[in-house]
Amino acid sequence: MSYKDFNTEEIDRVMQEAWTTFHIYRKFSLQQRAAYMKTIAIELDNCGDALIQTAMGETNLPEARLRGERARTIFQLNSYAEACEKGNWLEARIDTAITDKTPPKPDIRKMLVPLGPVVVFGASNFPFAYSTAGGDTACAFAAGCPVIVKAHPAHAETSEIVANAILTAANKCNMPKGIFAHVHGASFEVGKALVQHPHTKAVGFTGSYIGGKQLFDWGNQRNEPIPVFAEMGSINPVFLMPEKLYTESASMAQQYAASITLGVGQFCTNPGLLIGIESEALKTFVHDLGKAIQKIAPAPMLHSGIVSAYKKNKGNALLQDDVHLVAESETEVKENEGLPTIATASGQAFLNNPVLHQEVFGPYSIVIRCKDMQEMITVAKNLEGQLTTTLMATETDITRNNELVEAIKNICGRFILNGVPTGVEVCLSQHHGGPFPATTDSRFGAVGADGIKRFARPIAFQNWANNLLPDELKNENPLNIWRTVNNELSKEKI
Amino acid sequence: MSYKDFNTEEIDRVMQEAWTTFHIYRKFSLQQRAAYMKTIAIELDNCGDALIQTAMGETNLPEARLRGERARTIFQLNSYAEACEKGNWLEARIDTAITDKTPPKPDIRKMLVPLGPVVVFGASNFPFAYSTAGGDTACAFAAGCPVIVKAHPAHAETSEIVANAILTAANKCNMPKGIFAHVHGASFEVGKALVQHPHTKAVGFTGSYIGGKQLFDWGNQRNEPIPVFAEMGSINPVFLMPEKLYTESASMAQQYAASITLGVGQFCTNPGLLIGIESEALKTFVHDLGKAIQKIAPAPMLHSGIVSAYKKNKGNALLQDDVHLVAESETEVKENEGLPTIATASGQAFLNNPVLHQEVFGPYSIVIRCKDMQEMITVAKNLEGQLTTTLMATETDITRNNELVEAIKNICGRFILNGVPTGVEVCLSQHHGGPFPATTDSRFGAVGADGIKRFARPIAFQNWANNLLPDELKNENPLNIWRTVNNELSKEKI
Repeated sequence: MSYKDFNTEEIDRVMQEAWTTFHIYRKFSLQQRAAYMKTIAIELDNCGDALIQTAMGETNLPEARLRGERARTIFQLNSYAEACEKGNWLEARIDTAITDKTPPKPDIRKMLVPLGPVVVFGASNFPFAYSTAGGDTACAFAAGCPVIVKAHPAHAETSEIVANAILTAANKCNMPKGIFAHVHGASFEVGKALVQHPHTKAVGFTGSYIGGKQLFDWGNQRNEPIPVFAEMGSINPVFLMPEKLYTESASMAQQYAASITLGVGQFCTNPGLLIGIESEALKTFVHDLGKAIQKIAPAPMLHSGIVSAYKKNKGNALLQDDVHLVAESETEVKENEGLPTIATASGQAFLNNPVLHQEVFGPYSIVIRCKDMQEMITVAKNLEGQLTTTLMATETDITRNNELVEAIKNICGRFILNGVPTGVEVCLSQHHGGPFPATTDSRFGAVGADGIKRFARPIAFQNWANNLLPDELKNENPLNIWRTVNNELSKEKI
Repeated sequence: MSYKDFNTEEIDRVMQEAWTTFHIYRKFSLQQRAAYMKTIAIELDNCGDALIQTAMGETNLPEARLRGERARTIFQLNSYAEACEKGNWLEARIDTAITDKTPPKPDIRKMLVPLGPVVVFGASNFPFAYSTAGGDTACAFAAGCPVIVKAHPAHAETSEIVANAILTAANKCNMPKGIFAHVHGASFEVGKALVQHPHTKAVGFTGSYIGGKQLFDWGNQRNEPIPVFAEMGSINPVFLMPEKLYTESASMAQQYAASITLGVGQFCTNPGLLIGIESEALKTFVHDLGKAIQKIAPAPMLHSGIVSAYKKNKGNALLQDDVHLVAESETEVKENEGLPTIATASGQAFLNNPVLHQEVFGPYSIVIRCKDMQEMITVAKNLEGQLTTTLMATETDITRNNELVEAIKNICGRFILNGVPTGVEVCLSQHHGGPFPATTDSRFGAVGADGIKRFARPIAFQNWANNLLPDELKNENPLNIWRTVNNELSKEKI
């Protein structure tokens, strides 16, 4: 099924409705917001097999993965709803008056309030978890913001089904009409009009650097600039430390062959760069990794645009000076499939060539062979911002190489020890973000309930009578939330 | 005394040193950072009368005000140091592993880490509190960032003395060399080079819209965009509600005449816009306000640029259609002084003319006479983002006019009931920020220890052994800080 792009008038109507609704919805209690989010979770489950079948048809993703992703999306909605109700994200602060101070200190109380309508762009690689009812949408609803989703054209029908589930939930929860809107648009003009609309107050995006950076620029170039939270992918460097490599090379090769090819390499946490120091152990690792990759069959990628970009970007990477092919899958590859591939290059080649720093979205990874630890440190210091970095290391490897460890820490949002970057646990301690160009704002992440704070801003109430304050800030603490009262965290009444 | 502008090579050297130092300073404990900040506070006090005399000469600000501002700056340094040590701002989160989950949930722990070197632009109107050792500098040091201050050319010598106090403190606390640098520059090229330098990772600014917006644009146009926190002033609307006006018109006129002319109107929280509804009470208020203003003597403004801008902007405002002069100070005005002035216009004139929405920096305010409550609501809905809004209202005024109250709440960072916006208490509950164009990022403020979070970003540690984690995240909680452990706030060990 194909959907017509929304025109300027339709987009304006949608945004006007969202704006009107914002002034109603932002007054809804945390409980009302949470109940709505939990109802969306139920309705998403109620979409049943039909939704999974449609998504399979549109994305080439296997059934088990899609069922898992829907379960994860339901978990996100429910857990962010719980965080919403708990209210820690409101950052409630109270300083009580000191009347005998000179000048007198007024009573001041602060909490976060919603920014306004949030535009969310569906992600091609996560039709559920980072699309229509995904993390950004859940965070915006929790914050008190209406949501306008721009459906990803590669899974527009899947998006339409999920949008209807959200609208059903909105109806059941007596939400105002403009609480959610679903906008189709294959052309970039639709996205541009949404970001530029004066009633849009924030944007959430997961996808390519080119797409995310363009939205960021449009957001900043407005008369009233708005925050654009774009998660733009990463090459997720993995540092293979000497002692660890010496002792566990074989199992690491198996572990990484699996991680590199998981979901046909279509995760923003895919390990696209492995960095070791020239040694017999590294040679063995590269050999074993190549052997393991040869045995992994190609599989269909999300859509034809992704397949052709993979072929082009991988081809370009392999053409670079001093880059050598290590191995490819031995299974014959079909037109719509991504061929698992491992390449290698020297540390010097990597340092000299920015092309090798770029993400190749798909089941591809390059092993960089540094001549010594000093070169590995130089590589770490010359890496761009990353969603994740991984250290494969023994305790000795770590304690002996503090400079390297600190350099790596400085460029990433998540720092993994002895694991793989694929697999992003949804929990409050998670951070799915990182310094530019991994994201446009390193201070916020797209996974976990802290993401709610992207869509809210503080307001301080000075000298308000207790009965006129929002419940969150009343003396009695009727919502029983954590607040910082005169610099001390507390749930006590005042 | 005049100082030579730094050239490109000098700026690059300063930034290289800051970058090298960043990798050392960010590992310093919260206690070390706090001790350094407290030592700066002591050294600032040690500058004694000489500093006050120099500042008086450069800024025309009176001695009492400058002594008060230094005391406030010392309080900021000490109280942000205490907040730094307390560690709540780190947003420490711990999710412990669940190994029998499918797939197993890894141990993930998150905290904020510093962004990197921060460039702070001194403010003309706060030579101490928002300049060299001011709020932005204190927040950046607390976050773990080196600071580069661009001295405001209008008080460069004052800035030099304070910079030397900071360097003395750095020396006493054995801080690395590049922890602080002081850059002179009267030309905008110096500011541009600082914002564009690749080692600059964030910018703090307090000043004009034109200046702040330019820094924001430069920050976003970099290859690696960086956050620019610019506080760009505000007209701080005051809503005079009918019942309140009827009962307390006379005292309100006195109160506001004082607030409008406080510090020759040179505060970003100066009430530049008073809004009432046509009535006898409003006429009386305007008359009384005019009478009170006539009795307030002009006083010298900060520097000649500020005086001429005040004359020009006020003159332009008074030339607009339907704008009428109500009263001016009756005292003869000198060349370097700002003349207290009150004007008035209709609600319709205000709605039709964007010029009347612009800040006139100085002892000037305009009273807008709305024809009815509906027009007052329309005015509220057509206001740009503001640092503060004030409601002068009885409880009946508030409960009867919910739509107005909600509209006002939506545009401001601080919402004052029955007070004046001038006077910004320094405390955790304070929010000195607001929607654009009051600031470039409504999610953060420039006053209070929450400002530390502007200069930090989260990092998540996955699967790290307890002994290898930062102290903030260790099981034993050796720093005894509040942390969210498995979704519950706690100071307990794990």
